[in-house]
Amino acid sequence: MPEPLELQTLSLHTIRFLSADGVQQANSGHPGLPMGAAAMAYTVWTRHLRFDPNDPQWPGRDRFILSGGHGSMLLYSMLYLSGFHVELDDLKRFRQWGSITPGHPELHLTPGVETTTGPLGQGFANGIGMAIGLSTLAERYNRPGFPIFDANIYAIVTDGDLMEGVAAEAASLAGHLRLGRIIYLYDDNRISIEGSTDLAFTEDRLKRFDAYGWHVQSVENGNDVQAIDNAIWAARQDPRPSIIACRTQIGFGLPTRAGTAKAHGEPPGEEELTNAKRQLGWPVEPKFHVPDEVLAFFRYAGERGQQLHCSWEQMLAAYRQAYPELAEDLSDAVQGSLPENWQDALPQFPADSKGIATRQASGKVINAMAPRLPGLLGGSADLAPSTNTLISNGGSYQADHPTGRNLHFGVREHAMGAVVNGMATVPGIIPYGATFLVFSDYMRPAVRISAISGLGSIWVFTHDSIGLGEDGPTHQPVEHLAALRAIPNLVVIRPADANETVEAWKSAVTRRNAPTVLALTRQAVSTLDRSVLSPASGLHCGAYILTDIGEKEPDIILMASGSEVGLIVEAGYRLGAEGIHVRIVSFPSWELFCQQTQDYRDRVLPPRVKSRLAVEAGVTMGWERWVGEQGYVLGLDRFGASAPGNVLFREMGFTVDNVVEKAYRLMDRERG
Amino acid sequence: MPEPLELQTLSLHTIRFLSADGVQQANSGHPGLPMGAAAMAYTVWTRHLRFDPNDPQWPGRDRFILSGGHGSMLLYSMLYLSGFHVELDDLKRFRQWGSITPGHPELHLTPGVETTTGPLGQGFANGIGMAIGLSTLAERYNRPGFPIFDANIYAIVTDGDLMEGVAAEAASLAGHLRLGRIIYLYDDNRISIEGSTDLAFTEDRLKRFDAYGWHVQSVENGNDVQAIDNAIWAARQDPRPSIIACRTQIGFGLPTRAGTAKAHGEPPGEEELTNAKRQLGWPVEPKFHVPDEVLAFFRYAGERGQQLHCSWEQMLAAYRQAYPELAEDLSDAVQGSLPENWQDALPQFPADSKGIATRQASGKVINAMAPRLPGLLGGSADLAPSTNTLISNGGSYQADHPTGRNLHFGVREHAMGAVVNGMATVPGIIPYGATFLVFSDYMRPAVRISAISGLGSIWVFTHDSIGLGEDGPTHQPVEHLAALRAIPNLVVIRPADANETVEAWKSAVTRRNAPTVLALTRQAVSTLDRSVLSPASGLHCGAYILTDIGEKEPDIILMASGSEVGLIVEAGYRLGAEGIHVRIVSFPSWELFCQQTQDYRDRVLPPRVKSRLAVEAGVTMGWERWVGEQGYVLGLDRFGASAPGNVLFREMGFTVDNVVEKAYRLMDRERG
Repeated sequence: MPEPLELQTLSLHTIRFLSADGVQQANSGHPGLPMGAAAMAYTVWTRHLRFDPNDPQWPGRDRFILSGGHGSMLLYSMLYLSGFHVELDDLKRFRQWGSITPGHPELHLTPGVETTTGPLGQGFANGIGMAIGLSTLAERYNRPGFPIFDANIYAIVTDGDLMEGVAAEAASLAGHLRLGRIIYLYDDNRISIEGSTDLAFTEDRLKRFDAYGWHVQSVENGNDVQAIDNAIWAARQDPRPSIIACRTQIGFGLPTRAGTAKAHGEPPGEEELTNAKRQLGWPVEPKFHVPDEVLAFFRYAGERGQQLHCSWEQMLAAYRQAYPELAEDLSDAVQGSLPENWQDALPQFPADSKGIATRQASGKVINAMAPRLPGLLGGSADLAPSTNTLISNGGSYQADHPTGRNLHFGVREHAMGAVVNGMATVPGIIPYGATFLVFSDYMRPAVRISAISGLGSIWVFTHDSIGLGEDGPTHQPVEHLAALRAIPNLVVIRPADANETVEAWKSAVTRRNAPTVLALTRQAVSTLDRSVLSPASGLHCGAYILTDIGEKEPDIILMASGSEVGLIVEAGYRLGAEGIHVRIVSFPSWELFCQQTQDYRDRVLPPRVKSRLAVEAGVTMGWERWVGEQGYVLGLDRFGASAPGNVLFREMGFTVDNVVEKAYRLMDRERG
Repeated sequence: MPEPLELQTLSLHTIRFLSADGVQQANSGHPGLPMGAAAMAYTVWTRHLRFDPNDPQWPGRDRFILSGGHGSMLLYSMLYLSGFHVELDDLKRFRQWGSITPGHPELHLTPGVETTTGPLGQGFANGIGMAIGLSTLAERYNRPGFPIFDANIYAIVTDGDLMEGVAAEAASLAGHLRLGRIIYLYDDNRISIEGSTDLAFTEDRLKRFDAYGWHVQSVENGNDVQAIDNAIWAARQDPRPSIIACRTQIGFGLPTRAGTAKAHGEPPGEEELTNAKRQLGWPVEPKFHVPDEVLAFFRYAGERGQQLHCSWEQMLAAYRQAYPELAEDLSDAVQGSLPENWQDALPQFPADSKGIATRQASGKVINAMAPRLPGLLGGSADLAPSTNTLISNGGSYQADHPTGRNLHFGVREHAMGAVVNGMATVPGIIPYGATFLVFSDYMRPAVRISAISGLGSIWVFTHDSIGLGEDGPTHQPVEHLAALRAIPNLVVIRPADANETVEAWKSAVTRRNAPTVLALTRQAVSTLDRSVLSPASGLHCGAYILTDIGEKEPDIILMASGSEVGLIVEAGYRLGAEGIHVRIVSFPSWELFCQQTQDYRDRVLPPRVKSRLAVEAGVTMGWERWVGEQGYVLGLDRFGASAPGNVLFREMGFTVDNVVEKAYRLMDRERG
C-alpha cells in the first residue's frame, strides 16, 4: 500500500530543502538537480532499492549511482534519511575541509556511495561495469533457489551524461550485452549550464537508446512518484537495459530560478530559498528541517532493507549447507582475498637474446593465472590479438554467455575504462582493460577516476614506444609514460623483459586498492640472463641493480625502463670491457621506487655518483629527478615517425653506440 | 555520361592492387579497407570531389577525409592517380623512413591530405569542424552569384569511427547544427580486429544517426558505383548531414581473407596477393601496375578539377571588382595574416592587490580582440559562463544563424577538441575551445592531434588548480599541467595575472602553426604592480625576472607559475626585508623558456645559484629541470579535496609562511 500522499509530498520537500539548505550553507554547490529529481530518488530508494544502511557493503544489495555527481546533496540527503552513517551534521558540513560530504560523491569516503562521480558520463558507464561484474558472480555462485547475486543497477543520469561520448559508448555496449539489470532514470530537465538544451542537444534521445537496443520509456511528470514507480516496474520486467526519461524542472520550487540555468550550479541565495519554502509551505526555519514522520518513513525503508539483508543471510546459511565449497569460495571472493596457490603456475622464462615481446609474455602470464584466479576477467578495445589479452579457454562474455571471461569492448576505449572501474567495485573481480599505450589518452578520465577511487583496475597498455614502428606518430606514444606517471596513486610499471613482466603482473594483481598500468612492448626484447643479473623480483622495488661491472664504486650509473634496458646492459658491458666501472639499473616503476626507504634508494643510486644516464624512448620530462643535475637523459622530446621500429630506434639515437658515447661524454664532463 | 563499365572495373582494381602492393611491399599496413572501399573512394573522387591536384590548398575545394586513417594506402593511391604530387615511387616507399606516405595520413606532410587521421573518430569530428569553419567563411564572403566558399565535406568512416564516443558527440552536434555539407560514406564491412562486429557492435547504426537528425541511406552493394553515386546525389540535395552505409567486404578480392579480420591489418602475403590478382584477372607482375587508360581517366578527373579551380579564379576576379574591400579581406584571411591593428584595443590592467581571476581577464581580452579578429570564434563544452569565453555581441552559432561566433559544443569535450581542430584547418579561422583544466583529459586525443598536426587551435582551460575549491578532487587538476607539458609541440601558458593573460592571448593568436594551452584561474589573483616589477611582456620568454630584491647575486631564486606567483612575490619581499637577496621569477611557460637561448636562460636562472624554490599547485614532476638537484619544489603530489579554495591553499602548504620557511630551509642546506 502506498504511503499517504501528504507524507510523500512532505518527503519530497524534505529532500529538496535538505539539499538546498546544504548548498546555501556551503555557499557553493548545485541545488537544481536535487530539487528537480527528488521524486526520482525518492521512488528508487523507498520502493525499489535493496540496501542495508548498517552494512553498506552487503554483497546482495542493489546499486545506486548518481551519475550527475554535482547533485551530490541529493545523494547525501538520501543516505542520511535512509539511516546510513551520514548524519545531519555531515549535511551541514557539505563541501568543507575534512567532511564526508564533498562536492562530488567519492567512493570509500562516504558510506553508501558506490562510485566516484562528477566527471560526466563516468557513473553511467561504471554502472554497466557493475552489471557485468555482478552477472559473472551470479553465474558463478547462484544456484536454483539461491539468487545470491540478484542486483539491479539504478542510476540517475543527466543531459550532461547523455551528451558525453563515454556514456554513448557504454550504452551501445550495454544494449549489445542486453544488460537487463540496468535501470537508469534520465533527469530530462532540458537545461544545461549555458542555457536551454536547445542550444546544443536536440537529438531524439530515446530513439537513440532504442537504436542501442535499450528499453525506453517516458514519464511526462517527473514529480509523479506513481508514474515513475510504474515505469521502474516495467523496466524491471524488461530483459533489455532500461532508460526512463523523466520530464523534470531543474530547481523545482525556486520561485524565480526553477527551470533556468541559474538553478543549476550556484546557491539560490537566502531570499530565493526563503521564498521557495514559503511557496511550498515549508518552514523557513529551522534549516535542515526534517519532519519526524518523514524521517520515520525513510528509516522504515532502511529497516526493510535490513530485513532483506537478514533474509539473504539466512539464504546464505542454507547455501553453505547445500554448497559448502562454493560458499567458501564465495566468502573468499567477497573478502577480496586471492586463492593461496594463484602464483603457482606462473611461467619463468629462460635467458634468450632473441627474447619475446613483453606483451607476449603478458599473454602467457594471463593464461597461466586465469585458471587459478576465477575473478580475473577483462578484454580489449578491439585489439585483443595485438594486446595479447585473450584468456584462451575463457570464452567470450556475451548476452547469451555471461560466463565468458573475455570482454569485447569494441573500439570504445573510454567506456572500457569506466566499465572496468565499475567491475573493480565488485568484490572478487580483478578486471583489466587493454589497448595501445597511445590510446590511453582516449580513456584518461577513467584512469584518473581509478586512481582517485583507489580501484584495483589493471590497465594493459601495449605498443609502448616508437618501437611499434610503421604505424607512425599517431600510434606511437612518446609522452604517455610521463603523463601517466603524473597521476597520483597510479602505479606505472614498464617491465624490461619477460620475467619482469611476470613480476609486474604479480604486483598488479595483488594491488587491490590502487590501479596499475602495465606498459608493454610490441617488439621482442631479450630475456635477460638472470644467472648473471639480479632476479626480476627486484621489480617490486621499482628500480634495482641488475649488475655492477667492476668492483669499485661505479664511474657511471646507466638506468632504463622497458625495452631500453637491453640497450644499457649491452652498452654497460661494452663500457666495462673498456675498464669503466658501470652500474646497470633496471627502472621499471618510479612509483614503486618512491615507496622504498631513502636508504634503499641511496643504495641503488648513491648520491656521490653524479654521472648518471637514463635511457627511455619517451619524453625526458621527470627523469631529472633520478639522473640529477649532472646526469643526462637519452629520450625523445618529439613525436615519432613512420618506419620500421629498428630504423626508428637507430634514427632516434637508441643504439648501443650512442649510449656508450653519451656515457663517455657524461664522464668527461664530470672529470672536466 | 558515365565511363565504360570495363574502365570502371579496371580503375577499382587499380586502387585495390596499388594499395595491396603498397602494404605487401612495406610488409606492414592495412589492405582490408582500401580493397573493400575502393568503389566508395572512386565514386567520390571521380564524380563529386572538387579539387585541384596542382593546388591542394585551393580555397574553393571540397574536403575529403579518410577517417579510418589505417587505410592510408587508399588515400595515397587516390592522390597519385588523381595527379597530386604523390608519385608511384612514393607509394613504393609506403611506411618507410623519410617518405611522404606514412602509416597514417599526416597533415602538412603529404599534398592533398586534409587532416591527420588514424586515432579513430578524430577525422569524423574534424570534418564537422571544417563544415563549421567553411560555413562562417561562406556567410562572411559569399555574395549573390559569388559562391566563393561552397564546399562539401566527404569522408569515409568506419565501424571503429562509429563506435568511438568522439564521433557520437560530433554526430549529435552536427545533427543539431544541420550541417548539410557533411556527406559521410560508412564502410559497413561488419568486421573489426577481434572478429565480426557481432562481437560488440550490434546497435542499429542508421537509426542512431536518424535520432541525431541525420539523413541516412543504405547502399546494399558497396562495389556498386552507380548506387553510391545516386546516394551521394541524394545526400547533396538533403539539408541535413548525411551518412550512407555502404555494405562492403573487407579485403575484397583476397581469396581466403576477404570478409575476415585477417584482411584488416596485416600484409596479405605474396601467395594470397598473387591469387587475388589471378582471380580478378589482374597481372601478377609488375607490381604497382596502373593501366594507361586508368591513369588517363583519373588524370582527366584531376584536369576537370583544375578547370573548376580556373572558373573559380575567374569568379574571384569578378568578385574583386564587385567587392574590392571584401576581396582584400578574404585574401588576407586565406593567407592567414592577422589584421594589422588587431592588438590595438587590448586591455591593460592597473595594479590591484585584490585583482581578478585570469579567466575573467581572458574574457576581457577575447572581447577586446573579437571586433578586430573576425576569424576568432569558439566556445565551450557547456561552461561558457564559467570559462568566460563568450564573445558578448557575437551571437550563437546555430543552424539558422551560422554567422554566430559563439559555439555551444554541449557537454562534449572530446568532440569540441576535434571540431576545433577541423576549424583550425580552415584558413582565416582562429578557433578556441574551452573547458575546465581537469576535463582536458576528456579531449586529450584531440589536443595531441593538434600538436602533431601543427594546428593553431587555442585551448582555454580554466579552474586550473585546487584554487577552484569546493568542487573537490574530481574537478581539481593536479597532474594536468605536467601531462600537457609532456606533449611535444604544444605550448602551455599559465599566466600569473591579468596582464600576463593579455600577453598569453597575444602569444596564442600569433601562433598559427602550433596549438596553445591557456591555463587560467577560477579565483581572483592580484594584478601585479608593473611599476616596480618587470613588464608582463616577459611572458613571451617563458620565464622572466620580475624583480631582484637586493643588489648582490641572489641568495635564492623563487619561481612560480600562475596563481602562485603572487605568493612568491609576497614571500620574496618578506625575505628581502629580512636581508636576503631574492630573485623572483614568473615562469608561465616551460616551452617558451626552452625556445630561448642558453644565454638568456642562464641569465634568468644563473647556474651558480643553487637555492631555487619552485611553487606550483600541481604535481612536482619535471620542475627538477628548473630547480636542480639542490632546489625544492613546493607542489602537490596528491589529489585535492573538497573545501573552499583558500582553505585548501592553506592546508596544502601554499602560504607565504610556508614559502618563506622552505626558502630558509633551502638556504640553510646550502650553507650547511
